[in-house]
Amino acid sequence: MSYPRKIKGFRDIDANMNQLRWKIINSAAKVYKKYGFEHYDTPVLEYSENLGKYLPDSEELAEGVYSFNNPELEPKFDNKGAEIRDERNNVVMENHYLTMRYDLTAPLARLYAESLWELHKHKQVQEGKTPLLRRYQYGQVFRFEAKLDPGRFREFWQLDFDTVGTDDITTDAEACMILADALEEIGLKRDNYIVKVNNRKIIKGLLISLEITEDADEQNIMRIIDKADKIGMQGVAQELGQGRVDEKSKAKIEGLNIDNEIVDQIMGFLSDFSEINTRANILEKLNSKNIDNQTYTEGVSELTKIDEILSALNFDENRVIFDPTMIRGMGYYTGPIFEVEYVGTYKDSKGRKRKVGSICGGGRYDGLVEKSLGMKVPAVGASIGVDRLAEILTLTKQTPELAQGPVIIIAFDDNLMTEYQKIAYELRTKDIEVEVYYGSRKNLKKQLSYADKKNCPIAILIGENEFNNGVATVRNLKLGKELASQITDKKEWRERVQSEVKRENLTEEILKMI
Amino acid sequence: MSYPRKIKGFRDIDANMNQLRWKIINSAAKVYKKYGFEHYDTPVLEYSENLGKYLPDSEELAEGVYSFNNPELEPKFDNKGAEIRDERNNVVMENHYLTMRYDLTAPLARLYAESLWELHKHKQVQEGKTPLLRRYQYGQVFRFEAKLDPGRFREFWQLDFDTVGTDDITTDAEACMILADALEEIGLKRDNYIVKVNNRKIIKGLLISLEITEDADEQNIMRIIDKADKIGMQGVAQELGQGRVDEKSKAKIEGLNIDNEIVDQIMGFLSDFSEINTRANILEKLNSKNIDNQTYTEGVSELTKIDEILSALNFDENRVIFDPTMIRGMGYYTGPIFEVEYVGTYKDSKGRKRKVGSICGGGRYDGLVEKSLGMKVPAVGASIGVDRLAEILTLTKQTPELAQGPVIIIAFDDNLMTEYQKIAYELRTKDIEVEVYYGSRKNLKKQLSYADKKNCPIAILIGENEFNNGVATVRNLKLGKELASQITDKKEWRERVQSEVKRENLTEEILKMI
Repeated sequence: MSYPRKIKGFRDIDANMNQLRWKIINSAAKVYKKYGFEHYDTPVLEYSENLGKYLPDSEELAEGVYSFNNPELEPKFDNKGAEIRDERNNVVMENHYLTMRYDLTAPLARLYAESLWELHKHKQVQEGKTPLLRRYQYGQVFRFEAKLDPGRFREFWQLDFDTVGTDDITTDAEACMILADALEEIGLKRDNYIVKVNNRKIIKGLLISLEITEDADEQNIMRIIDKADKIGMQGVAQELGQGRVDEKSKAKIEGLNIDNEIVDQIMGFLSDFSEINTRANILEKLNSKNIDNQTYTEGVSELTKIDEILSALNFDENRVIFDPTMIRGMGYYTGPIFEVEYVGTYKDSKGRKRKVGSICGGGRYDGLVEKSLGMKVPAVGASIGVDRLAEILTLTKQTPELAQGPVIIIAFDDNLMTEYQKIAYELRTKDIEVEVYYGSRKNLKKQLSYADKKNCPIAILIGENEFNNGVATVRNLKLGKELASQITDKKEWRERVQSEVKRENLTEEILKMI
Repeated sequence: MSYPRKIKGFRDIDANMNQLRWKIINSAAKVYKKYGFEHYDTPVLEYSENLGKYLPDSEELAEGVYSFNNPELEPKFDNKGAEIRDERNNVVMENHYLTMRYDLTAPLARLYAESLWELHKHKQVQEGKTPLLRRYQYGQVFRFEAKLDPGRFREFWQLDFDTVGTDDITTDAEACMILADALEEIGLKRDNYIVKVNNRKIIKGLLISLEITEDADEQNIMRIIDKADKIGMQGVAQELGQGRVDEKSKAKIEGLNIDNEIVDQIMGFLSDFSEINTRANILEKLNSKNIDNQTYTEGVSELTKIDEILSALNFDENRVIFDPTMIRGMGYYTGPIFEVEYVGTYKDSKGRKRKVGSICGGGRYDGLVEKSLGMKVPAVGASIGVDRLAEILTLTKQTPELAQGPVIIIAFDDNLMTEYQKIAYELRTKDIEVEVYYGSRKNLKKQLSYADKKNCPIAILIGENEFNNGVATVRNLKLGKELASQITDKKEWRERVQSEVKRENLTEEILKMI
């Protein structure tokens, strides 16, 4: 046995943090539900095979996640779900590999594929005729990040909604609306966030027009463009070309060695959109490009459709903008992508101004169940990072008031314990939260300090005298705190915050004060 | 890759099950809060050492739980929290063993011990002067049960409250009240549950009076008495004595070989309380026994105190009873123990009547942080098995109505998609949940079947004609379902459930119907 502690990157949540976390979850869930999404849940633990390898920047299945062998021996299955047998016709057994969910999308893929599996096996489902599922889900996800940046956690909460089974681009527009509505329901001001939209097909189409069509090349280029925030546009150009030397570490970073002319064209395209502009202007500029492959055309026409819907519903540029330079890391997006940026800064512990960056993300992905069912199922969804958002609201001082504690009944006298309980119970029948103090009696200061820590609004004090006289002393702790700095005279302070009430009027008085 | 499936013993939760789960959680949490408990959360994953070995019937640390090595190498610590170094003075590194939480009590112990650790190291805390903590917590817990009984799961939700840091027996009485209040808030009728209370000290005191004082003997005897439900009183007597032959398996079960005379005394004590009786009668009988060791006396006096408080607050025998024969498996309880039994039966899938049994449990335990801090911290708490309770409410048909789906806007016409969105958005501003159908257009039957599955209350139908005429057809799906069996004439049915409303009155009409 060593000493009591949490695993690095994990943390406890107290009443105040829980209040904020559940305010975020309940507000967003209400909006998700308002758009017709149903509340689903899936297990924390899944067969690793079923989660697949969606984690960005991971080469190995088990990299970046918490995985281990199932303690249970189970039959090994083939792709068709049949048990594998050895040469003696015995079922081959193994300890399957399990993974703690690293997001809520991979389990959704398993859930959807599982519900289709039997139908699919009997060829009763086809691409394009997939059932519609609109679900939201929230819960913990787990990432084993070897290097843990400050403010990052290995267990954190996500809050997802997804529409599976349709390629209707209206659902993409809807996703932007939902993110905006959810963030405002959570309490963000309209100036404090911006939903950024792009379409992967546009960059893809640009590359096709430059005769870059290999998946690997495309991924490499996107990965570098995605780093523009960190390495600047010049850095991007260098990494696309001959490479560069990192200023800090002096390390040589290999480039992709793309021809200068092509790099110039890519950079030219990006710089055309480097200034924030209206959606209409951006669409106009995209249309004016001399690119006419199908991918590009689809990309632009999908963005046009999204703009139409957003504009018709008055989701203007103060809430949703287009950004053709945005990439988003996740490789599996196939069409429109969204990202919500928190607009505004906060001061870190050293008083330095800090940018917040991305708080939500999502997009369209058609490969959701491709691996398990071998067919494309279109899907679009997005996720709010609950803990990230909670942190930002805390840093920018937009949190709700401290979680309010119960009315506290100070316990002076063992013999009055039953009386204290009676009073507490009476108040509870009026939906008042009440706690009888159970620590050591008589030390009033300690009891009041406990009440203070718990943010109790009112204290009820009944000693033997009060009990015999049928009265109770009621102290307004909240007011007491407010007046503490203004009134120095103890007697005056007490007169202002404390009063004696008749026992039979107690409930009524407390109800008035609360 | 094999086929898409969940791990055995794990399951998905759909909207209806989630509605029930969260009704249980929110109702109980409201009651816990009303008694002054604060909402805490702890990680799903902990260092195995910190969770300790509280699981019943497990010999090994990792038995019955999901454990694995942390992928991260970390320093090894000694009991004082100092890094261990090898002969060359290098820090010894290891992959610590991690465990997915198997209950919410062991993490509470870690949390409490962690908060005290530094103070304790500097000898600033003493037994009997431990800070008071009253917290509630809900969440998934994980048990690897090798043999999985039907209706049991390896991931399930618990809903705990605990008071740590005081041995005030009032908190034990309070725990019984909380369980009763919480179950009623969840919706259980007063006839449908009974809180059973005992005190470990009573059986312990009885055994002391029979000169059985070794921990192992005591545990063995309690384990056998605990099986009375399964093996009957005669079986208990046999297993305490010479052993018995199992009727079904014909296996010989070893007995403890306790002297007949002592077995008779134990059995006599138990049979004295085999009939349910008033708390007052039971206390009287307990007091009349010729047992006078301190443990027994304490046990009876604690029960007396609990009865006093419960009686003063009108928690009578219809809610809380005493049962001196009740044991509860968990070895770590040290005083009063509680168990809530669901009173009533249900019919299983084969139509057989089944008893439900225990749905909540708890008790007082003083060894919470003994292993890590080496001091006793008194604590009392209880847990509601959320999934177990959900299952019982389902089996006994006490579930809420099916989760209600959104108002659905049938999508006939691609060109009207923006109009559908506008209507949806307008309704949402009035807090109405609305979904536009995004599957394939025109197939009205498929869209209505989707709405039916989602339990949508109302459908809005707008085709080109309706749009041009500035009207909408509104169908009351809920009423339609009710009338379907009564009205066979299609035209009449449609007239009853469907009407045309002006576009500008639509929101108002829907608000009226919902």
